[in-house]
Amino acid sequence: MTSLEDAPDREGASSHLPARQDRGSTEGREARPAPEADRLARAALTRVLEPGDDVAGAWLRRMGPVALWRSLLGDGDPPEGAGEAKIAGLRLRAEAVSPEADLDAATALGGRFVCPGDEEWPQQLDDLGDARPVGLWVRGRANLRLWALRSVALVGARACTEYGAHVAGTLGAGLAERGWSVVSGAAYGVDGAAHRGTLAAGGPTVAVLASGVDHIYPSGHTELIGRIAEQGLIIAELPPGAHPTASRFIQRNRVIAALTRGTVVVEAALRSGSLATARRAAELGRFTMGVPGPVTSGLSAGVHQLLRGEAVLVASAAEVVELVGSIGDLAPAARGPVLARDLLDPVATRLLEALPLRGAIDASKIARDSGTALEVTQAKLFELQALGFVQRCGTRWELLPGAHSAGGYRRGGP
Amino acid sequence: MTSLEDAPDREGASSHLPARQDRGSTEGREARPAPEADRLARAALTRVLEPGDDVAGAWLRRMGPVALWRSLLGDGDPPEGAGEAKIAGLRLRAEAVSPEADLDAATALGGRFVCPGDEEWPQQLDDLGDARPVGLWVRGRANLRLWALRSVALVGARACTEYGAHVAGTLGAGLAERGWSVVSGAAYGVDGAAHRGTLAAGGPTVAVLASGVDHIYPSGHTELIGRIAEQGLIIAELPPGAHPTASRFIQRNRVIAALTRGTVVVEAALRSGSLATARRAAELGRFTMGVPGPVTSGLSAGVHQLLRGEAVLVASAAEVVELVGSIGDLAPAARGPVLARDLLDPVATRLLEALPLRGAIDASKIARDSGTALEVTQAKLFELQALGFVQRCGTRWELLPGAHSAGGYRRGGP
Repeated sequence: MTSLEDAPDREGASSHLPARQDRGSTEGREARPAPEADRLARAALTRVLEPGDDVAGAWLRRMGPVALWRSLLGDGDPPEGAGEAKIAGLRLRAEAVSPEADLDAATALGGRFVCPGDEEWPQQLDDLGDARPVGLWVRGRANLRLWALRSVALVGARACTEYGAHVAGTLGAGLAERGWSVVSGAAYGVDGAAHRGTLAAGGPTVAVLASGVDHIYPSGHTELIGRIAEQGLIIAELPPGAHPTASRFIQRNRVIAALTRGTVVVEAALRSGSLATARRAAELGRFTMGVPGPVTSGLSAGVHQLLRGEAVLVASAAEVVELVGSIGDLAPAARGPVLARDLLDPVATRLLEALPLRGAIDASKIARDSGTALEVTQAKLFELQALGFVQRCGTRWELLPGAHSAGGYRRGGP
Repeated sequence: MTSLEDAPDREGASSHLPARQDRGSTEGREARPAPEADRLARAALTRVLEPGDDVAGAWLRRMGPVALWRSLLGDGDPPEGAGEAKIAGLRLRAEAVSPEADLDAATALGGRFVCPGDEEWPQQLDDLGDARPVGLWVRGRANLRLWALRSVALVGARACTEYGAHVAGTLGAGLAERGWSVVSGAAYGVDGAAHRGTLAAGGPTVAVLASGVDHIYPSGHTELIGRIAEQGLIIAELPPGAHPTASRFIQRNRVIAALTRGTVVVEAALRSGSLATARRAAELGRFTMGVPGPVTSGLSAGVHQLLRGEAVLVASAAEVVELVGSIGDLAPAARGPVLARDLLDPVATRLLEALPLRGAIDASKIARDSGTALEVTQAKLFELQALGFVQRCGTRWELLPGAHSAGGYRRGGP
């Protein structure tokens, strides 16, 4: 799963590693294998670099994470072409950073830190170039990469109308029923309605935060974000404890746009952040969609402006899927698995064995028959769908034709 | 104003005229000049041919109206390639026709019959090819050609929602305030709201009927259609007294589409007549526009389907005008007159003299100062706008820069 772009990072990490033995403050790192040094350096960098900083991203690409981090700790020359004031500011921040403590904090939350090159890294984020996240802090059971393969962003106004909330909730549920993940920003209004609609349909939803994964914002969404962490995924570029800022909200939107196959705007005033997300999606070659509304509402104006330009009008989840499902380059076609069955983990294998050869059954029956917790079952089934083993039909699941033969999978056979 | 296409008709009429002296039933026609014979034949044909019959339209183009009419009266060979059953049916209809009586009936209603080649003929109807109307029966004061130069069609569902009626009324008023004529079909729902909104703003509105101009349909719109006849224009392809039929409604829509620079659909279910009008407009190279609505309404579905295809999303009269006003080939630019002032009629001249050299005034003051009835004043001012002498600013009117010099127009000068 290592992309070509990651290779220099790894090499940089290995070649620079011995030089770090002289630094008391990084004791213990040198004992780890190169990928772990890489991971620690990236974790540290998420606390020092602001999301979306493509100047620092270029340093990271050229130097590799370990050398860049060492440089920010004052060990070695500053990055080539770096401004003095910027370097001084970053070095001041770097002094107090303890990536081990951040990684421990994430683990305590049941979370993890996912880096470029990891199996779970969503490679479509590489489209952000030097503004690609340094790494992603993740809470939740599911595999982020697999969920994101079939995902759509639903965004819109915080102060949405009843109509906007209704539409967002209906689209979230409809996308879930069609086996698509719904990505949003956990904000009030359209974001919240989209997450809730997806959760209510037992579907996969991903909240991308502009703070650390443990810093709940807005506080009114404490319960909702808790449910997403249980049933879905919470992800953030910033390390645990980090607070959101205005620019972090803006940069968060680029992750939502890049992670998904398309962005749907439900209600948005002119010059709103949701429009910026949609335009970013268009720049990244993703689908840009808008749900129209009454022309008498100011919250329709931004969406309608988008629909007069780059966006396609969508009125239902079926229309969204018809559009974003038309490209087959990110996810395997719904015709059977592309991965050998032998490579699946034991839980996935157990779930596949609980599915009948013909016909569809409820996730709750699959959970019971396989002896797996319902939430684990649901998260895993959406991963298996992304891998082409199963498909969702409304609220039920069925095996896809090729699921038996792939990797020699047989059930009840001789 | 005679187009090249009309010339053969005229010649055909003159050359065939003497031969008609032997027909008792057409007594008196031969005494008229050729254009009058032509006009009488066309008036007769509107009672015999169904609107939109492009087979008969091809006969008309090849034979001219007088020869075709004679042929349908059994005088001469049937049109080349005509089916026997069709000819027999048309001849049966032709027996009882008295175009003189129809023209007299129109005159009694304060109406007239406008033919291709007449100064008042809207030449954009020629885009319909052989399906061009044979002629148009017209009620109302204004000059149809001038009003139609700057016109937009507003169409939509008969059983529209409050939202649709509100939007249609607002668009009608907004278009009128910007000096545009609103064309619709006088039906219940969106059509009625569009006419009413335009009338309420003192604007020019044209109702295209699928019956004779004196046959009010629907009967619930008796008062509305009466007001349109007073303040606007009522036009029809069918002669006085004719009833509407399903196919006549469909054919009426092609006239709405062809007459205007663009068609706006306000609310429409899937597979509705309004969508057919909009698609016809697109085929004719006119602008096709749709006003979006809540995706939760079935009456938005047709419009949204259109917006996913050929139509442009519009949310206000300003956006409609921005689009349709961008082509300058039909109407003179709003920079001054293209016609010498000497060629204007006395009423128009009087109205221009009542306008101040600078600044805008209400139509009611222009009417008072010039001693002209308000309704005549309003109708004539929109004609003068189409000719480039004046422009409307909200509810007021002002002279355009070149209005003084054109044709040596001076006021109060030596």
